[in-house]
Amino acid sequence: MKVNGKQFRTIRVQKGDDKVIQVINQPLLPHKFEIMDILSCREMAKAIENMNVRGAGLIGAAAGYGMYLATIEASRQRDFDSHLEKAAEMLVATRPTATNLSWAVKRQLKAINKAEGLADKVKAAFDTANAIADEDAECGRKIGEHGLPILKEIADRKNGEPVNILTHCNAGWLALVDYGSATAPIYAAQEAGIPLHIWVDETRPRNQGSRLTAWEMEQAGIPYTIIADNTGGHLMQHNMVDICITGTDRVTRTGDVANKIGTYLKALAAKDNKIPFYVALPSSTFDWEIRDGIKEIPVEQRSDEEVKYAFGLYNGQMTKVLLTPPEAKAANYAFDVTPSRLVTALITERGICQPNEESILNLFPEQR
Amino acid sequence: MKVNGKQFRTIRVQKGDDKVIQVINQPLLPHKFEIMDILSCREMAKAIENMNVRGAGLIGAAAGYGMYLATIEASRQRDFDSHLEKAAEMLVATRPTATNLSWAVKRQLKAINKAEGLADKVKAAFDTANAIADEDAECGRKIGEHGLPILKEIADRKNGEPVNILTHCNAGWLALVDYGSATAPIYAAQEAGIPLHIWVDETRPRNQGSRLTAWEMEQAGIPYTIIADNTGGHLMQHNMVDICITGTDRVTRTGDVANKIGTYLKALAAKDNKIPFYVALPSSTFDWEIRDGIKEIPVEQRSDEEVKYAFGLYNGQMTKVLLTPPEAKAANYAFDVTPSRLVTALITERGICQPNEESILNLFPEQR
Repeated sequence: MKVNGKQFRTIRVQKGDDKVIQVINQPLLPHKFEIMDILSCREMAKAIENMNVRGAGLIGAAAGYGMYLATIEASRQRDFDSHLEKAAEMLVATRPTATNLSWAVKRQLKAINKAEGLADKVKAAFDTANAIADEDAECGRKIGEHGLPILKEIADRKNGEPVNILTHCNAGWLALVDYGSATAPIYAAQEAGIPLHIWVDETRPRNQGSRLTAWEMEQAGIPYTIIADNTGGHLMQHNMVDICITGTDRVTRTGDVANKIGTYLKALAAKDNKIPFYVALPSSTFDWEIRDGIKEIPVEQRSDEEVKYAFGLYNGQMTKVLLTPPEAKAANYAFDVTPSRLVTALITERGICQPNEESILNLFPEQR
Repeated sequence: MKVNGKQFRTIRVQKGDDKVIQVINQPLLPHKFEIMDILSCREMAKAIENMNVRGAGLIGAAAGYGMYLATIEASRQRDFDSHLEKAAEMLVATRPTATNLSWAVKRQLKAINKAEGLADKVKAAFDTANAIADEDAECGRKIGEHGLPILKEIADRKNGEPVNILTHCNAGWLALVDYGSATAPIYAAQEAGIPLHIWVDETRPRNQGSRLTAWEMEQAGIPYTIIADNTGGHLMQHNMVDICITGTDRVTRTGDVANKIGTYLKALAAKDNKIPFYVALPSSTFDWEIRDGIKEIPVEQRSDEEVKYAFGLYNGQMTKVLLTPPEAKAANYAFDVTPSRLVTALITERGICQPNEESILNLFPEQR
């Protein structure tokens, strides 16, 4: 997608030095657009853990490049395999809920182990990392294609009035390599000339909505309104939302959806008001091993500081303000699980399926 | 209730000068405890509008004292009645959703009109303002008495484990004159030796939970944990909430509940997880005129700045940080309406009733 008119992806190999990976330093958005150079697997793990890079697709791609950097490092060590294994563990441990992480690491290990000789292993890791990134971008594009008819159908009923879409967190191009998951149909609809208006949940405590999704909409010129996370239910009660679309960090083979904390509450409100609730994902986000999302998906707990403080711009500087009594205790569950019964359908790069095992496996028969 | 060991109410007549009303300047909490002097009806209206005083019961009491100050002012004007009428309109317009405001203003007008002679009118207004405040405090105490058995029953099932109570916004003693509505049963349970733990929704955009409820719990020594507003559903899915108790700004005669935006979402989650959802209120919060809360209760919209900025402590100073792109549009609906079907019961100063007209009128037969 474009930033100030210039084409960007969220992650790329530095031109002229393919041992340097470049990412957008996302916590500084929307106030500052800064490219961060990542020089080692450890730096990549830190960037994932600190959420300099975040979002299901992007952390998959970041893990892919992290494994590539680890392979370069391992090729200089006495024990290649044990170094690589430790790197893999380090990457997977950074964000326990995200399934793309382990998916990308596993894919890399397979490719690297298959290659013979250190140079070939490095090359295999490089090629695989690039393939993961390219495929993720392509998935975003296809999710947009498959989601477009859903928005078109709503638009046809609205007589030129904008289609009101509510989204939570950022499942935009910043969360993937390009296009995004939840936003991909939005960008496709914009291109098709469909009038749109996006309700952007601010998404406390890290405000990925009011920072990142808002910034994306601003860059793309799509009308949007930021709302406190408490607001979606009220809007839905008053017919101000036509459809909800979110991304996800992990989907079970039965269609339960782990996504940013608060998604479950919006899905409940959508159900209560008969508003369709769609989840968009590249298939790398499926966890084919599990069936019960609420019981089986581990929910990451992050630092209580994210809840106790807000982080924003003051006097031109990124500044943290204390919201609570200084001695307060806070809990910070990063995700929740929306049971499949509240989800209308899943939009994947292969097409749309119902949130149940049968329909999902019809689209992905190789997982039977 | 006590602040640093000293007895306080949220509003009082200044000792030594009964033309000065004193309130706690709530936006500075928890960082600073400051008493604000209110010298005129206009100042009182501003304090209500800017939420220096807020909360259903307290703004009723504040409107009562505002009318008393207006009566003093009117008694120095040529046209007493028209001055008083304008003052009444000004007060009622400050917060459109809150029903206690117009309730208190009407009660004052009745008392003032009944009195003859200017001195008597001022005295009637003073007495009525004091009566509204005293009754509100007494309502809080009684709500605590009636709510206590509900918490006791849960405690009996928990074998000494703390009762986990989720609350939204601040319906604590800061929101009434004393004791609070949602917190009154909590304070009563603490006194009865019941082990408690409170989940405190931060309540964006003004963070009344993480600022005010947290500060109250801190002062009272009740264990609590602040959570982002997105979190309650996840906690309920995992049996970490035994009961929800909130306050309200207006209840229809059929039991629909207007309260801080986001209450509806928590009520949906409580229903989905079979967790009791109670609403506590002094009966002055009933709007006996209306039946359909979603259609008939006006929902106040406040400045988008409250959503775009967060307000907290930085370097010892209250500081506003920008969270969004500077040019972003935001919407700020302050309340939502929870339909009665999602409410377990209402806790009032007269006792407990079901959220339906029949049960409510059994408790308040004078409203038949």
